[in-house]
Amino acid sequence: MTTIKDSVHDHIEVEGVAAALLDTPPVQRLRRVSQLGTVDLVYPSANHTRFEHSLGVYHIANQALSKLGIGGQNADRIRAAALLHDVGHCPYSHNIESLVHRHTGKYHDEVYELLESSSIAAVLERHDIDPETVAALIAGEGQYGQLVSGELDVDRMDYLVRDAHHTGVPYGTIDHERFVRELRFIDGELVLDAGNVQTAESLLLARALMNRAVYKHPTVQIGRAMLQRATERLLAADATDPETLRRMDDHDLLAALRSCPATTEYARRLDTRTLYKRAVWAELDDVPDELLEMNHERTRALEADVADAADVDTEAVIFDIPGEPSMPESTSRVVVNGEVRTLAGESTLVRALMAAHHDRWRFGVYAPEASVDAVGRATEQVLGLELDALVNDLQLGRPATLDEFTEEGRS
Amino acid sequence: MTTIKDSVHDHIEVEGVAAALLDTPPVQRLRRVSQLGTVDLVYPSANHTRFEHSLGVYHIANQALSKLGIGGQNADRIRAAALLHDVGHCPYSHNIESLVHRHTGKYHDEVYELLESSSIAAVLERHDIDPETVAALIAGEGQYGQLVSGELDVDRMDYLVRDAHHTGVPYGTIDHERFVRELRFIDGELVLDAGNVQTAESLLLARALMNRAVYKHPTVQIGRAMLQRATERLLAADATDPETLRRMDDHDLLAALRSCPATTEYARRLDTRTLYKRAVWAELDDVPDELLEMNHERTRALEADVADAADVDTEAVIFDIPGEPSMPESTSRVVVNGEVRTLAGESTLVRALMAAHHDRWRFGVYAPEASVDAVGRATEQVLGLELDALVNDLQLGRPATLDEFTEEGRS
Amino acid sequence: MTTIKDSVHDHIEVEGVAAALLDTPPVQRLRRVSQLGTVDLVYPSANHTRFEHSLGVYHIANQALSKLGIGGQNADRIRAAALLHDVGHCPYSHNIESLVHRHTGKYHDEVYELLESSSIAAVLERHDIDPETVAALIAGEGQYGQLVSGELDVDRMDYLVRDAHHTGVPYGTIDHERFVRELRFIDGELVLDAGNVQTAESLLLARALMNRAVYKHPTVQIGRAMLQRATERLLAADATDPETLRRMDDHDLLAALRSCPATTEYARRLDTRTLYKRAVWAELDDVPDELLEMNHERTRALEADVADAADVDTEAVIFDIPGEPSMPESTSRVVVNGEVRTLAGESTLVRALMAAHHDRWRFGVYAPEASVDAVGRATEQVLGLELDALVNDLQLGRPATLDEFTEEGRS
Amino acid sequence: MTTIKDSVHDHIEVEGVAAALLDTPPVQRLRRVSQLGTVDLVYPSANHTRFEHSLGVYHIANQALSKLGIGGQNADRIRAAALLHDVGHCPYSHNIESLVHRHTGKYHDEVYELLESSSIAAVLERHDIDPETVAALIAGEGQYGQLVSGELDVDRMDYLVRDAHHTGVPYGTIDHERFVRELRFIDGELVLDAGNVQTAESLLLARALMNRAVYKHPTVQIGRAMLQRATERLLAADATDPETLRRMDDHDLLAALRSCPATTEYARRLDTRTLYKRAVWAELDDVPDELLEMNHERTRALEADVADAADVDTEAVIFDIPGEPSMPESTSRVVVNGEVRTLAGESTLVRALMAAHHDRWRFGVYAPEASVDAVGRATEQVLGLELDALVNDLQLGRPATLDEFTEEGRS
Repeated sequence: MTTIKDSVHDHIEVEGVAAALLDTPPVQRLRRVSQLGTVDLVYPSANHTRFEHSLGVYHIANQALSKLGIGGQNADRIRAAALLHDVGHCPYSHNIESLVHRHTGKYHDEVYELLESSSIAAVLERHDIDPETVAALIAGEGQYGQLVSGELDVDRMDYLVRDAHHTGVPYGTIDHERFVRELRFIDGELVLDAGNVQTAESLLLARALMNRAVYKHPTVQIGRAMLQRATERLLAADATDPETLRRMDDHDLLAALRSCPATTEYARRLDTRTLYKRAVWAELDDVPDELLEMNHERTRALEADVADAADVDTEAVIFDIPGEPSMPESTSRVVVNGEVRTLAGESTLVRALMAAHHDRWRFGVYAPEASVDAVGRATEQVLGLELDALVNDLQLGRPATLDEFTEEGRS
Repeated sequence: MTTIKDSVHDHIEVEGVAAALLDTPPVQRLRRVSQLGTVDLVYPSANHTRFEHSLGVYHIANQALSKLGIGGQNADRIRAAALLHDVGHCPYSHNIESLVHRHTGKYHDEVYELLESSSIAAVLERHDIDPETVAALIAGEGQYGQLVSGELDVDRMDYLVRDAHHTGVPYGTIDHERFVRELRFIDGELVLDAGNVQTAESLLLARALMNRAVYKHPTVQIGRAMLQRATERLLAADATDPETLRRMDDHDLLAALRSCPATTEYARRLDTRTLYKRAVWAELDDVPDELLEMNHERTRALEADVADAADVDTEAVIFDIPGEPSMPESTSRVVVNGEVRTLAGESTLVRALMAAHHDRWRFGVYAPEASVDAVGRATEQVLGLELDALVNDLQLGRPATLDEFTEEGRS
Repeated sequence: MTTIKDSVHDHIEVEGVAAALLDTPPVQRLRRVSQLGTVDLVYPSANHTRFEHSLGVYHIANQALSKLGIGGQNADRIRAAALLHDVGHCPYSHNIESLVHRHTGKYHDEVYELLESSSIAAVLERHDIDPETVAALIAGEGQYGQLVSGELDVDRMDYLVRDAHHTGVPYGTIDHERFVRELRFIDGELVLDAGNVQTAESLLLARALMNRAVYKHPTVQIGRAMLQRATERLLAADATDPETLRRMDDHDLLAALRSCPATTEYARRLDTRTLYKRAVWAELDDVPDELLEMNHERTRALEADVADAADVDTEAVIFDIPGEPSMPESTSRVVVNGEVRTLAGESTLVRALMAAHHDRWRFGVYAPEASVDAVGRATEQVLGLELDALVNDLQLGRPATLDEFTEEGRS
Repeated sequence: MTTIKDSVHDHIEVEGVAAALLDTPPVQRLRRVSQLGTVDLVYPSANHTRFEHSLGVYHIANQALSKLGIGGQNADRIRAAALLHDVGHCPYSHNIESLVHRHTGKYHDEVYELLESSSIAAVLERHDIDPETVAALIAGEGQYGQLVSGELDVDRMDYLVRDAHHTGVPYGTIDHERFVRELRFIDGELVLDAGNVQTAESLLLARALMNRAVYKHPTVQIGRAMLQRATERLLAADATDPETLRRMDDHDLLAALRSCPATTEYARRLDTRTLYKRAVWAELDDVPDELLEMNHERTRALEADVADAADVDTEAVIFDIPGEPSMPESTSRVVVNGEVRTLAGESTLVRALMAAHHDRWRFGVYAPEASVDAVGRATEQVLGLELDALVNDLQLGRPATLDEFTEEGRS
């Protein structure tokens, strides 16, 4: 048995199929895929990787298996799925996932192809584990898939705590041991046992607070949008292809962005933290409905219109249109008075969190500092927006109010 | 300068008037007044004291003074008030405070009498500080009183973090440094600067989660109710008087309870953790309005009626009627778009917390384990309650369902 | 199964005989016996108790049993012994243990009498466990006794980490999980497996650093000496008897010291932290050999002589003569190149620690602040000491030089 | 003022020249230079960077300046030096520093050239700070240079704690606040004030324990040796030049190693953690003296001889010859009895640490797993070694005995 020291869970024991999987190149590659992408632009300590996170998820899965009394082949499959659940991530994880999906039709949790063709396949075969079953677990399918990818999965038990540890933001510090202890299967559904409405609420609260302070910090979003745009141009310039791209690690992608003439300026800006600024930052109710339904091409066309109207280069305008606000954890199931109920049904607090989550949605338009005013005005004009005072403040390009370097940042 | 090592804030520097106050008997007494009273019946590590908390509050006050640019005599007064803010606490802190108030008309933050007559008076005089001003600060009066006792005071910055550290419950872990950095005085009001709605929300969330898991854990409440009742009987038996009582430390009170025949059984039960159980546990909407308005005598009379009806000793029935739910932190003020606003007005989440807080109110009736059923039924009858299934479950003495309300620990 | 939340080990699961033992009055009494006695005079956060420590030791024992593959009745006996290992402690733990031993002939780990006569006996019998076996384990006898009380026992795995957590002194933070993982029985001897010389060294280092900074901090020692002397006088005044004394909790003892006229002044001094100061602080090489061999009566006689010579009350002179320096952990056994060896034999560092430990031995004479000079000079004269400059400095009452020996805190 | 959230020190305030320096490309580059190089091969969480460490050092420097009462221009210079002290590091920090030095004659702390020519120069000039002075401070020159680079510098206050936080190894957790509080300048020398022999010892102990468990873990050393050798071949293949190399970040170097045919196999091995193993692991007394004095060419020649004798490729043999053991912290100065003394002179423990440090020196020869036996035997023969049983064990490929030297992790 191998023991690995982890900064979050202390000692992690790895054996059997998990130990063998750990040594495969696709898993070792996760050492060089950052967990949080551009979050390090705001929280400089956030340099942890998908590799340590995968070990952590494996560790918590192991604890859950023991508490739930799951053993044998099922347990080995779940262990393998836990360790491999992020093996399909592209460089910078979620940061460029939608781009990769547009080109390959694949999200990071669609990994059957990888499991049955790489060095992983040999390991699974040697341990008599079917790659298809593992891929299904990673995709959240079946009863046990809920453990690997669902509203109460071991994935979020690890990442909330790990991201809090590495950013220094305390909000993610949930009591993950309690979660693991209280998990039950009732009629094939993964639920939290009686007495755990607050336990479930604490997970949503942690997630909501981390969202605002970390995952969706405006500066983090700007960095992400720039990285996406740069990678899009890399593909457009044929400097790489989508299939190669999704198997790169962070080093490969950064090296490619630096060396391709079409992206070198973006790379320089990211390397030196010379980021775009917000030209527009508008609430959901202030933007036209069509904005949320626009496809990729239409968005690019509008950006070009705005660039034209502002008399700047096309690459100086980036639209950032988040999807409609959702909060999957609100459907977590808890046992109350002997019945399985959804958390949102039970908790006033969770319903409020969902409303608050909706309030925090923002449409952002980013531009180089010098063009912020022009791009802001041009966007108003092209989209026919009537934006409120705050946005106008932003358009006046006063970077101080953006809290450019602060950990929390106002929106 | 003296440096004191603290398990929460690491090094705390004490000098000047604070160092001199530290050595007075009333402050040294706080070493023997537990911070959380009967919480240790559920969380065995929660043995911290008002002394270390007072040092912590002093420490955070010092940081706030430095950030706010307050110096000179004002600063010294605030430092003294921070260190002395809990000097008026009776043994077991809040646990028997209402009882002491009923007899003396004083709450723990009414300390002028103590400041101007004890060894503290001499220290204050030597440092040219008026005890009346310090007492006013501790009572939350004036602009600077808000720092010592208000919705955004340094008191709660310390206790949430400290109580989390010692109970092992992570929910109280707020980012207290951020609070201190963001405090401002605007038109004499203490507010959080722009960009801090989430900061303020996180304080309420921490408080709300700690309330349920710790401060108002049902077993903690039972212990508290038993300690109150025992102390009430101690006074009734003339084993001590209210003025002596409020200046005791925990050792004195426990020794008195053990040696007085009228209270020795309560003392034995608390010492051996042979606690009463819940005979009734009813929601706000299920109890008659008059229950919230009853005075002390009427409550005792009803308890006697219930005891009669159940055919048990009077001391076997304890009513626990919390005050109407309130949440003072919801009036915290934050700067939003350049204006000072109350948190409750700004935050969907906070309004939901207030609603949820209301939902958690419970009327409890406690009795020795063997009398739980009889007392439960007698209460229904005497009060004319029609309690729902859950309470009936409780009356049937099925302790498993109690877990519905507990976070942790043995009940 | 019961889960208890602990500030050090997070969740501790208690079941079977351990859960039943937990509810007995002798174990509940440990809630009111402080772990570190007078250490809180220097580290105000050090208010943890023997109860939470006992739970922690039980928890680590459980982990060790699982790693060592020990199950069945043996495991239950060891679990019981771990939970009960401190049940024989007198109030303030080690602080007055030697006094109790002088009067009763018993140390805290001689508990057969208690196990076979109290409520514990019934629990053990119900679980078919022989009290004699448990008492033997607690006394460190037999192969498994090494786990409960030996150089590598689970006791010190808990207390070093716990004392660090509560004092705020980082030095005790050993990697206790690694210890538990590396324990092996070889030929009936408990050893650390190969590759663990440094692991073993780290335990000694932690212990040595905690010794100086915490357990043997001069101010802590003065408080301890005063508490011992007060308790001795309490017995002399027939205010209690030794058998009653050793079953008291801290509250009982403090109440007794406060109310007995012969000890009320000591109680006041301890309550208000008006401690004696060092009149003499001499190294091992500077004191006559006979000092280490003197019995109790001879010591008291010499103290009286010194008091006479200094023209002060007898109670104003306290001799503090530690036993000869020893370091039992240095005989810990580790596997090196396939052989079991003692740590001291393997480690240059440990031999140095033993030498350093010897260097830190001090003979202290304590007196009220006003009598420090007189008592210091009288001691030199009575004992015929020729003390070096440092001690003379101390006699001149220059407290700054005291810091040479202190880590933290106010002396 | 900008506040940056750090996972170790929480909030770090940056302003003035430091804030301006933070935005320069050479400082931003440190975001992509790992603090511990190949340590992540053993401790997967150790992904922290020179950037966050530099912020931490700046933060501690700020605290020290305030405690020491240093202000004005001196303070600004020291702040700048603290933030810039690692700006000269090559990719993977110390891992390839000796190689860079061989080619450029420069170590990482010789940065004048960089300070006076890059974007840093403009910032320094704007703040009226002479780059030469800052470079001198970074080189440890002058009275204040001791604060930035000396035996008691702020550099090690940060890295010990930070490396412990990120590896999960507790040994580095020193009480850094205490160090900062106790620093004094006496006759121009930076010393620890009276009462701090143990404080100074704890620093050496932390360093010594971290050395073995982390910095000099055998697997870490193997990874480092492989990275060095690969980079040496990169230069030899003219794929880059030394001046370019030292200004690369980790991404650049890894990309270069992957794409250069002469190094692609090393890159693959590092990427997939297919590391060389130890063929020889010999103590200082077992190797010929000349081994320590050999220059680079002679070493390479001997490696070639060994490869010949073992009938393997030249690149399959790597000699790892550490410099002679030294322990600069042992010359730290502390005030004892009013005099400034060196720590080694005062402390038995430190002298033991120096001896133990000497005992841990090892000469390593590394080879691919399949060639370990052949290379081991060939080395004995070529160097005329007579190695003891242990080394022979290693040559026989019994990995269990390797654990004797490892703390954690897989080798």
